Amino acid sequence: MSELGPLHVEPGRPAGLHRRHPGSSLGLVDKAAATAELKKLVAELSVLQNHLYAEAKQSLLVVLQGMDASGKDGTIRRVFTGVNPQGCDVTAFNFPSHGELAHDYLWRCHARCPRRGEIGIWNRSHYEDLVTVWVRGLIDDARRERRLHHVRCFEHMLHDEGTTQLKLFLHISHDEQGRRLQKRLDDPEKRWKFDPSDLVARKQWDEYHEAYEVALTATSTEFSPWYVVPADHKWARDVAVARLLVETLRGMHPEIPPPLEALDGMAVD
Amino acid sequence: MSELGPLHVEPGRPAGLHRRHPGSSLGLVDKAAATAELKKLVAELSVLQNHLYAEAKQSLLVVLQGMDASGKDGTIRRVFTGVNPQGCDVTAFNFPSHGELAHDYLWRCHARCPRRGEIGIWNRSHYEDLVTVWVRGLIDDARRERRLHHVRCFEHMLHDEGTTQLKLFLHISHDEQGRRLQKRLDDPEKRWKFDPSDLVARKQWDEYHEAYEVALTATSTEFSPWYVVPADHKWARDVAVARLLVETLRGMHPEIPPPLEALDGMAVD
Repeated sequence: MSELGPLHVEPGRPAGLHRRHPGSSLGLVDKAAATAELKKLVAELSVLQNHLYAEAKQSLLVVLQGMDASGKDGTIRRVFTGVNPQGCDVTAFNFPSHGELAHDYLWRCHARCPRRGEIGIWNRSHYEDLVTVWVRGLIDDARRERRLHHVRCFEHMLHDEGTTQLKLFLHISHDEQGRRLQKRLDDPEKRWKFDPSDLVARKQWDEYHEAYEVALTATSTEFSPWYVVPADHKWARDVAVARLLVETLRGMHPEIPPPLEALDGMAVD
Repeated sequence: MSELGPLHVEPGRPAGLHRRHPGSSLGLVDKAAATAELKKLVAELSVLQNHLYAEAKQSLLVVLQGMDASGKDGTIRRVFTGVNPQGCDVTAFNFPSHGELAHDYLWRCHARCPRRGEIGIWNRSHYEDLVTVWVRGLIDDARRERRLHHVRCFEHMLHDEGTTQLKLFLHISHDEQGRRLQKRLDDPEKRWKFDPSDLVARKQWDEYHEAYEVALTATSTEFSPWYVVPADHKWARDVAVARLLVETLRGMHPEIPPPLEALDGMAVD
């Protein structure tokens, strides 16, 4: 965990986003070294996930948040391709539907919590209801405060009942976001991802970071930690996320159930 | 609320189940008087529910708990028959399925929380995971303590996000339960409801009541109150529940949205 320790948001201390470097390469020499390490990590991730699935007693919830173009989709594609999709459940929490808005904001998230044995991956999450909704002025400070409390309670319950959690904030710089959004506009293969409202959010860069600072600080707990992943270099970001996943899964010690004793010496004819 | 005040479990004070009388007739003269009052209450309930549905801003969650044969099904049938089922959503939480057990115990309940504008009625609830599961020795005291905390948090969140709650413990005497279970055995029309495991739970009468005492005391809050409804007389029970529903809905002040101004003088040709 040595290189990853500094990414952790220590419970009870400020997240300190402004002091963290989106361009960090985490001590990796270059992209080639990162690619080699990622390959090994994904192989181990695949084995660990298989054990988790076979054991079917505990689950892992991975929450991905970050500004537009911070690489949430790319991280999932690059880190989880090669892992058995049976047992990995990805949910993209986009703008809530009419039916979802008829319920409390945690309703649609709770519904998509991973089953025992599964890894649940959330591309955006209930944190949109603390951050985006606050920046847009849809909830005031008092309501955000209450929601921060709900969220801590909800995550504590998930932990108590068998869900390990790993929350990742993909941290990019304003310049790098600019380059990526421009690329989306210019590249016909990527243009479908461009949403003009991303430019509105880009103008509120500071407000979003202030809101993330509050949310991460208030909700990084022993039972549901946040990590701030430097995300300007995609290769560094992927390795950081894969390392965190492998470390977390190792710590869960998933065990393949012991075979029935009666199987010894049994022959299939 | 004068006759209903004593049914309330005051937050922070013991529920005191052993001091409450399952045979109370709540000051009603006789069954005929109760029937007449129930009819009026159901009519008002129907109007209030229609307003709640039209408004579509807030919801009401009614939780029904009680020993076997305490009248949970009967209460729903007698109080809600005559209320528009569009906008009333009843869920019977029976033994959890394999898929439900693969999630935390609040997962299936949260999924069935009422939408804005709806009345959600839970026939049994997450309280089974605090009471029954504890009596059966499936969770220890420490785990129950944690769950009591989760439940308070969950209910607080529901309240903050627009769900008014009314939790009803149908309180019957040991003798009355005996008569009702015997009737289930003897009456061919009722025999399908008889479950031999009810006799096991009947033998653990004191343990169940001790567990309910703890659960009601710990979770009757300003935002999610418990009421202990005397349930030996079905007619008194029905009136008590209907009164509580009407009082609660009145207190929510559901309002039909104002018509569009442009409608004035408009003619349909």
